[in-house]
Order: sequence, then C-alpha cells, then structure tokens
Amino acid sequence: MAFDGRRRVVIEGVAPEIDGGLFPIKRARGEPVSVEADIFVDGHEVISCVLLFRLEQDKDWRETPMQSLVNDRWRGMFVAAEVGRYFYSLAGWVDRFKSWRRDLQKKADVGEHTELDLQTGALLIDEAAARAAAQDARQLVQAAKTLRAKNPGLSERLARALSDDLLRLMALYPDRSLETRYAKELAVVVDREKARFSAWYEMFPRSCAAKAGKHGTFKDCERLLPYVASMGFDTLYLPPIHPIGRAHRKGKNNQIKTAANDPGSPWAIGAKEGGHQSIHPQLGTLEDFKSLVRQAAALGIEVALDLAYQCSPDHPYVEEHPQWFRWRPDNTVQYAENPPKKYQDIYPLDFTSEQWPELWQELQSVVQFWLEQGVRIFRVDNPHTKPLAFWQWLIGAIKKDHPDVIFLAEAFTRPKVMYRLAKVGFTQSYSYFAWRNSKPEITEYFKELTQTEVREYFRPSLWPNTPDILTEYLQFGGRPAFMIRLVLAATLGANYGIYGPAFELCEARPREPGGEEYLDSEKYEIKHWDRERADSLKELIARINHIRKENPALQNDWSLRFHEVDNEQLLCYTKQTKDLSNVIAVVVNLDPHHVQSGWVKIPVEALRLDPLESYQAHDLLTGARFLWHGARNYVELDPQAIPAHILRLRRRLRREQDFDYFM
Amino acid sequence: MAFDGRRRVVIEGVAPEIDGGLFPIKRARGEPVSVEADIFVDGHEVISCVLLFRLEQDKDWRETPMQSLVNDRWRGMFVAAEVGRYFYSLAGWVDRFKSWRRDLQKKADVGEHTELDLQTGALLIDEAAARAAAQDARQLVQAAKTLRAKNPGLSERLARALSDDLLRLMALYPDRSLETRYAKELAVVVDREKARFSAWYEMFPRSCAAKAGKHGTFKDCERLLPYVASMGFDTLYLPPIHPIGRAHRKGKNNQIKTAANDPGSPWAIGAKEGGHQSIHPQLGTLEDFKSLVRQAAALGIEVALDLAYQCSPDHPYVEEHPQWFRWRPDNTVQYAENPPKKYQDIYPLDFTSEQWPELWQELQSVVQFWLEQGVRIFRVDNPHTKPLAFWQWLIGAIKKDHPDVIFLAEAFTRPKVMYRLAKVGFTQSYSYFAWRNSKPEITEYFKELTQTEVREYFRPSLWPNTPDILTEYLQFGGRPAFMIRLVLAATLGANYGIYGPAFELCEARPREPGGEEYLDSEKYEIKHWDRERADSLKELIARINHIRKENPALQNDWSLRFHEVDNEQLLCYTKQTKDLSNVIAVVVNLDPHHVQSGWVKIPVEALRLDPLESYQAHDLLTGARFLWHGARNYVELDPQAIPAHILRLRRRLRREQDFDYFM
Repeated sequence: MAFDGRRRVVIEGVAPEIDGGLFPIKRARGEPVSVEADIFVDGHEVISCVLLFRLEQDKDWRETPMQSLVNDRWRGMFVAAEVGRYFYSLAGWVDRFKSWRRDLQKKADVGEHTELDLQTGALLIDEAAARAAAQDARQLVQAAKTLRAKNPGLSERLARALSDDLLRLMALYPDRSLETRYAKELAVVVDREKARFSAWYEMFPRSCAAKAGKHGTFKDCERLLPYVASMGFDTLYLPPIHPIGRAHRKGKNNQIKTAANDPGSPWAIGAKEGGHQSIHPQLGTLEDFKSLVRQAAALGIEVALDLAYQCSPDHPYVEEHPQWFRWRPDNTVQYAENPPKKYQDIYPLDFTSEQWPELWQELQSVVQFWLEQGVRIFRVDNPHTKPLAFWQWLIGAIKKDHPDVIFLAEAFTRPKVMYRLAKVGFTQSYSYFAWRNSKPEITEYFKELTQTEVREYFRPSLWPNTPDILTEYLQFGGRPAFMIRLVLAATLGANYGIYGPAFELCEARPREPGGEEYLDSEKYEIKHWDRERADSLKELIARINHIRKENPALQNDWSLRFHEVDNEQLLCYTKQTKDLSNVIAVVVNLDPHHVQSGWVKIPVEALRLDPLESYQAHDLLTGARFLWHGARNYVELDPQAIPAHILRLRRRLRREQDFDYFM
Repeated sequence: MAFDGRRRVVIEGVAPEIDGGLFPIKRARGEPVSVEADIFVDGHEVISCVLLFRLEQDKDWRETPMQSLVNDRWRGMFVAAEVGRYFYSLAGWVDRFKSWRRDLQKKADVGEHTELDLQTGALLIDEAAARAAAQDARQLVQAAKTLRAKNPGLSERLARALSDDLLRLMALYPDRSLETRYAKELAVVVDREKARFSAWYEMFPRSCAAKAGKHGTFKDCERLLPYVASMGFDTLYLPPIHPIGRAHRKGKNNQIKTAANDPGSPWAIGAKEGGHQSIHPQLGTLEDFKSLVRQAAALGIEVALDLAYQCSPDHPYVEEHPQWFRWRPDNTVQYAENPPKKYQDIYPLDFTSEQWPELWQELQSVVQFWLEQGVRIFRVDNPHTKPLAFWQWLIGAIKKDHPDVIFLAEAFTRPKVMYRLAKVGFTQSYSYFAWRNSKPEITEYFKELTQTEVREYFRPSLWPNTPDILTEYLQFGGRPAFMIRLVLAATLGANYGIYGPAFELCEARPREPGGEEYLDSEKYEIKHWDRERADSLKELIARINHIRKENPALQNDWSLRFHEVDNEQLLCYTKQTKDLSNVIAVVVNLDPHHVQSGWVKIPVEALRLDPLESYQAHDLLTGARFLWHGARNYVELDPQAIPAHILRLRRRLRREQDFDYFM
C-alpha cells in the first residue's frame, strides 16, 4: 500500500474545472475566482478546508479558508490580481479540535460534559502548542493547563474550553499532517481588462483616402483616428495589411474576372513584395504603420491586426516552402473552399505536412514580428480550419512571454469547435449573435453563454455585422434595425464590435437575395465613405460607448439576467455590479417596424430595490428620468425615434428631508 | 515539440466518464455499454470513429464503429459479456477517402467533377492497397487502375469511384497513422446479474426457533428456507452471526440495564468465544452454517452476511491489538455514537491508527474467511463511518480475485457520501426510498437515480423497512401501507428487500412516538413470530416476486418513467425491455386510507401502442384484464382490497381473424 490510508477527507465535484482540468479557466485582471467543491469525510467529524492558489512563477501557495455551504459543498475565493497564469487547488483535513469542541458543546448543552472531555481537549491543545509560534505556544500551554486544573470548577473551565479566543488561536495551528490535497492543480489564464471589456471598430485602411478613387494609406488612417475615437472605440481592427497576390486575384463582387485596377482581397496574402511579415506598398511603410499604432495609442486606441494563415498563389512561401502545401497529381494546389464559398485566390497551408514543425515555427515568427512592432491584439481569421492543437501550442507559446496578448477567434462554425477554440486559448470569440434576433433566440443563447460553464472559458464578442455578414435582419429592417442591433451588441456583451463605416452608415444592400454578402463589398474594391452623412449613427454609437465606459455594470457578461415582458417584441435584461452600486436595465424593441409597448417585470428584491417605494429609471440614451414603482412598469418604444431604453436604476430617490432647506 | 501536431481529431465530452475517469461505471453481465463523445476535426473533412474495449486480462483491444448523431456527437456500443473489469476508450481519424468521396459526390451533383478528382482518389486507393490483405489489395489496385484509365468514359469511372463496393472495401483499410486516441482508458465493473436484479429477505437466525423462548439455530433457519423460497426471495441476509459481547451488553429496547438472559445486539461483535471469523455458539457450528448455505443454494437462495467492522469491548482485538482503538486519557475507549444514537456496547475501530495497514489486512482476511465458507454477498454495516479509501482498497482487492462478490452499502447518510461509497466500489446501496412517500418525493428521487449519471455507478436497493427503520408511514398506514410500500419497492427498484417477518406480519409498533425504532426490537431480544398468521402478506409477496421473475421489464432500473395522473395520490410509472416485448405499467394508490381514482396518461407512442386501437392491460396482481384505449384511462384503487395495479400492456389484441374458425 503506497498511499496513506489515513488521509480520509474526500475532495470531488470541483468547479470550475474544464474537461477534468485539461483546460484553464479565464479571468481578467482583478476578477474573483470562486471555487466550489464537495468536500467531506466519513463519519461525523468536523473538517476544515482551504483554497490554494499561486501565480505560475511563484513557488509557494497562498491559502484562503473555504466556507461550508449546504450538502457538503464548500466555497472559497481569491482575486486574480495579476496578468499571467494562476494555479489553484484545494486541501481539507479532519479538524480534531473543532470536532472535539462541537461535541463538548453538545454535551454541555445537556450537562453531560466531564473532566475526561476537558483532558481530551487539553491533549489537542498540547499538540497545537508544539506547532505554534513562541507567544501563541505560551498561551496554548496555559489554556491546556487551565483545562486540566482542579480549580476553578468544571463549568468555568468549560467556558475557557469553548471560548472564541481559544478557537481562533487553535485555528492558526491545525494538525494538517493527514490532510487531503486535491490531486489536480487547475489553471487560470488571467488577461488584462480589455479581454473582458472592449469595443472594436473594423476599418479597411485602403478605403480611408480623403479623395474618392485613391488608395488609402496608414497616414489616412491616422487622419481618421479622431473619428474613431469620437465614437468611443478602444480597438481599431485592420483587415490584412500585407501585399496582395496577383494570381487568381478576385474582381469586384468576388468575380473571377479582374479588371486591371482591381485591388484584390486583402485576405489573399502574399506577392513578390512579401508575405505575412510585409506591408502592402500602397498602404505605406512599416514606419508608417508603427506611427499609426503610436498615434492611435495616444487616443486610447489599440490597433488589432488580422492573423490569416493562408497564402495567395504568389506568396513567397509557395516557392520557398512548397512542402507546406498539398500538391495534387497535376502539380497544382487545391484552392481554399468553405462550401459553398470558393477562394480561388487563396492556397491553404497544409498543417499536417511532413514539415509541420518548421511551418508552425514560421507561423509563430509572424506573431513575433508584429509583437515587435507594438501590436498586442490579433483577430484570427478562420481558426477553425487549422488544427486545434496548433492554436493551443501557438497561443500558449506567445502568452508565456506576452500574457497581455489578446487573440480573437473568427470561427463561425459548429458550437463544439467554437468552444474548443476558446478552451485551447483564444481570449475572445466571435459568436452567433448576428443570427440571434428574436426574444427566445437571444435569451436561450445568452443564458448558455453567461450562466453555464461556457462562461469560464468562452468570452463572446458580439458583432452585428462584418465584411462577410450582412444579416437579413439588417437588410430589411432599415436604420431602426441597425440601432436595435447596436444596442443589443453593446449591452448584451461587454465585448462587441462593428464593421464600419458600413455599420454607422446603415449599408444594407446585399449582393444577391438570400445571401449575406454586401453588394460591392469592400473586400474586393476600394470604397469611399461619406462619414459625415446626416443619418450616420456615429453619435448614437458615441453615446452608447460613453454609457458603457461610465457604467461598470456593462463591463461584464456574467451578471446578465433576462426578465419577463408581456410583449414578445420587447426584450428586457439587467446587468449590475456585484455590490449593486451600478444597476442597468435595458429594454429593446426587437421590431424595427412598429411601436411596441408592454409591462416589464424588474426583479426588485434581487436588485435590492424597495418593492413598495418608487425608484428612478434614468434613461442614459435620452436623458429622460422615469419614476418607476415596484416590479411591473410600462414601457413604449418607437423604433423610428429610439428603439431602446438603457436605464440606470437608482435605488433611492431624494426626498424633502434630504435637502438643507427641509425643516 | 514532443507530440505529433498532425493528429487533428479532437475527442472530448466522453460519457459515461465518472469524475474524469477516476471511477468505473457499473454493468451487470450482458448489459450494453453505450458510449458517447464529441468528436470533431478542424475544417470540413469527414472523420471516422471507433469505440475500443477490452476485458482487463486481454491485451488486445476490440473495436466497434461509432455512429454520428447530431452536433458532432458520436455513439458506439459494446456488450459487457463477461463478469470482471472492462476498459473502453475511443479513437478517431480524418478519413481522407470518405472526404474525397463526399466532395466528389458534391461535384458530380453539379457536373464539376474532373479527371484530376479521379486521379486524386486513385492515389488514396493505392495507399489502401498497400495496407490491404492480398485478395482485397488486388481489387483495390484494379479500382485505382479503372479510375486512372482513359476508357471507359468519365461518367462510368465516376460511378465506380462512388460505388458502395469501393466504399466498403476502403473502409477496411483506413489510414489511421494520424488517428487521435482518447487519452483515458475508462473502466467498467461488470457484476453478475444479481447485482442488477435481486430480492432480499433479512432474518434474525436467533428468532427462528420452532418453540418460543428458544434461541434459534442455523438448523432452524434451514427449516425456514422453504418459507423464504415460497415468497420468491433469492437472497437471505443474516445480521451478524458472531459471538456477542458481554461488556455493556444492551437489554430489551436498547436499555443500558441487562437482564441475565438478554442476548445482546448481534452488532456488538466479539467475545471470549471469538470475533469476526467465529460463530455465535448458540447458532451452531461453522459446519452448520455451511450446511445452511448449501441448503439455501439448493432452493435458489444465496446467504448474505453482515460485515460490521466494529467490536464489542470484549472482542479479542481489544486485547490483542489495543493500537487499533483510540484510547482516551483515562485508558478507556469512546464507544460508538451516531448522534443521537449511542452504542455503549460497541467500540469503533480506529482506521487511522498508526498500524492501519495491519488493521486493514486483518479486515480483508475477514472477508476472505467467509468467501472460503461459500459466501459471496455482504451487506456492509455503516460503511460511511469508515474511510472511503478503505472501501476502495478492500472491495478492489476482493473483486480482483472474486469479481462475483456483491457488497451492499448500508449507508443512510448525506447524499455525497452515499454516492461516493458507490463510486469507490459498492455493488448496491441502500437508498432514501423508505422516506420517499408522496408523488413528488418519489418522482424526483427516482428520476435522479435512473435518469442522471448517478445510475452509472449507484444501484439503489429499496427497503421499506429494516430493523432500524419503521417509518411513520408504516406506523400509521396499517396493512394497506405495507402493501403499498411493498409494491413500490419491488417495482420501482430491480433490487429490493424487506426485513421479515416484521414486514409480512405488518409489525408497526414504535418504541416511542416520533421515533423509527421498533417496540421490543429484535435487535435486543429473541422474537417468536407467527409466520402463518392469516393476515400475513406472504402470498402477496410471493405473487409480486413471481411477477418480477416473469417480467424482464421489472429486472432493470433504467427504463423507469413516470406518467401523469390527475390525482396526486395516484402514482403511475412504466418499465419496459428495450425491444418493448415486455411493458409493465404500475399504478399505485399512495393513500393507505381512502379509495382513490383518476385518469392515467400512458405514453402510447413511446411504447408503440396504437393510439387509435385498443390494447390489453393485464393486471398481474389480480389476473383482471382491462381493455384500455389511447393514452388516457381510468383507474380506481381501494387500499383495503389491493392498492395497486401491476399491468402488463399487450400491444395488440387478438381479433376475430386471428382465430382458426374465422372465415
């Protein structure tokens, strides 16, 4: 028998624990890690439990006591105070002193306590004294002596035995020689705050020229930074900025035929000018790019790059590393497909080539290169078409030295694959939000994202549109549809983004009926946008991003709760800070065509609003202040005006006696 | 990079998998093991998956293909054909041939297939040919040749490429060089059938004497075997048969004071005559015991012994191994307590003594001794007051050489502890059944036991009474209450038992109001029962055990489903065999005092009963045959007559044309 059979405490049912501990949970810096477990022992003795935690680089564990809930469930908590990687585990032991004390109390309650009980306790105190620091040891020795003494009387010594002082002192020196340590050390990836709370703006640099018909440059982007900043975005995501292939270059509207001046898709990466570590000459120089990154930073904006691991047929890799591609019997490479989409201008990399280690290393060097240029955020193109093990390796390797790097997975694919990508390391993930429009669809999906284990590793990013996704809802809903989807994205999710200026200008024309591609998509041509158009949503966007910054309730996903409304077109939800100092209720009219009204049901008790008193519902979108009363309140929303309320609920209204002039 | 990054298939979400594979699942011989998992790969290729399984002693894995369900979920199944221990695992691989074939089919559907596609396929066939057996290799070489040939035309060769024959042949020789093997090998403990289906009868041997006032013997037990057999029980469980301590022996009704001829509690094990490997002299000799075991076997009854690891103060261990007990400062041992119960006649063993390895070995030798006497079933007393690791070790060690041994855990304790005992190895477990009386209580509890993961490791045994448990329901419900609880125990659970003859004689007098102890409990005195009393339930018991034996639907727990009745006092549930050849519907009136009636709702579709045709509901308790029609049918039950229906539902009634004389 190699193990010690005397370790009797059992620890099981630990949560969070993703796939038996195979994957870390995620937190942003400063967030709590609350851990629960079933911890128990045979028989009737009292146990004590601690939660252990440490930063990866620390050798020593820190400890925090766990509290007993019900049904042998225990809970402990620590704060993920630093960016990096934490580990946590648990320990529990039979607490002989607490057991003895409980039994003594029971006996005392019925007057059955004896000298023998006190002597038994004294022995436990002796043992603790041997473990204790000098000062405490003296106190303990004294306590043991008192318990054994002939004087004072039994009842007086009993009081000493049961005293809180003695309990506190003994709790410092428990006998943990036979404690059970949970067999696993579970990991937490702690990201910086932006992983939890971010507002992204996607913009094609080549469409940023001041004059129509010109190819935009990084300098043009710099000029537009105040525009982006004025809307309140903190992340500026640029589609690939690399040289674009010429072979099989796509024409306007994804045509196979190209006109002479067609710029091609930025995702067809690589040409004779270079590949993933080069810059498209028409955008400017590497120095220009670095200047953009700096200028953006000065306005509180980070530049995010696109990581699209694929090659145009004239990417330098194709000649230099033909073994990284899968060649067919006719010595061609099958272009990429994502049925029914065909990417004739793109060769996929063969991640299972014989020379996969070299390929993987090269791809890592791409990230490394852009890290050196000051980039810390990557939006990863189609990660679900590359091996999951590759991402686990790559992200793990990068974050080991750069734990502040953020990877956003652009995987619109089957749910298990999306979730696995998050498990293997992606910081944020595009979600199905774009296609969740009705109340039951939204409710069911966001419950899954925010109230199940999924939330421990999958941080959804909510995009109402992307260059690939112009939903039917937006196509047919007009400007109100854009407002509705904007409010939902920005308030259902702490992380969201839009593809602009198509979004703020309510661009809604599809290439073909039933499809989700934009007509005259920016993917295949240079656009010139009128950013100052009167009907632009930029001011609403600015307002909403401002509200997000001012209200910490909107900076997390986990507190989201949906509430009853007696109208299927009205969606109502709340978010709040843990201490309830900031409570936001959002009511959205999901119908872009008609005025809708109904009675919402606010969980006044849970939000600690007095169900019998009035409270203020301050609409942060319009400035209006409503006096609400109790749980049920009336709401009416006109999509032509503004299709939503974003209400800050204030618990107590000022009354006459709150003012100086009262009395 | 130590791992091979080319293994792209991911396997996760495996079920069943108890606590991440820490514990085995359980099956009885012949039961299926159905395994599901999420299995997927990046990208769009087709994968193939197999379920692997083997008996512990076999080196080679067997394989069975898994079927794709929805949402990347796969399922496979094997039968646990032999008693012992099985392992299972999974494997999946990118199936390049199936992927190629699917894509070719898609292209063919729109007329886009090319010679190049066929050449690509021919290469895959070449590779398979190299892996194939001689005969198949020739066929594959021929197929590749056809695909590459100039004649016949493309469409004819396409048909060959897409043929089922080729698919079947290729499926025999997949390229599994880069398959993903699930990292864990999960265990199945396969017990003999009795683990799944058993009817226990508990009987105190000392109360079996033919004449009142006499101490019963094993010979008396032999004489009563036909009585037990006539009721249809297959397991005869005897409380401890060892010498009973004299120190602190308990008197009648658990009194501290003993009269001279008080026999003491059989659970106060050990006296100068011996301990756990000895027999109480008044019961007979070891040879008598072995004779009882043999005689019982001849009647289809197995004798189960009580494994109560505790000692009376005069157990030989106390002198021989004082270190196995925990001594107090006054050189006494604290007697056992299970608050508020006090067992002054019992010393607990100290499983965490310094000499725990010796103690554990000795306790193992106790089981070994009784195995040598032919015992194969043990009812374990209070296992929750001994370390869980001890049971894991003991049961594991015993079942390694004797996989047919059955351990029943008598742990009436907190749910997590009960379930953990099952996980660490107990074959069956007493349950909370005795205290689940109302419809919601029964429904909720049995859903937990039969429709959640719990069923994979916890086999409940349903006891309406035990020598310690005379429920209030039985105290106040009269004879109907006993009938109700009997029907429930025997049909809700495939494993059940009663403590007799107290049960069949409807013994219902408690020692004190509000308590569950029997007045004049058999635990402290020798009883003389009038087994032939006219109001005995023995014939009903016989009838029910007969029904259980005749109807395989009642021999499993997993098929249990509850159904709507428009009367809270009526409980309706069904059980069936997988092929629906045997379908049992039970309706029980839970009210022992009044006639109750209502409409039950039978799930006719799920049971493949024609919702528009009549079907027969044959009451196996009374012999009555009802003609039922559709889902809703009327039921009326008088507890004074018989408070339940046990109905065999027969799908199709015979009609005139089924008889010879028709036409």
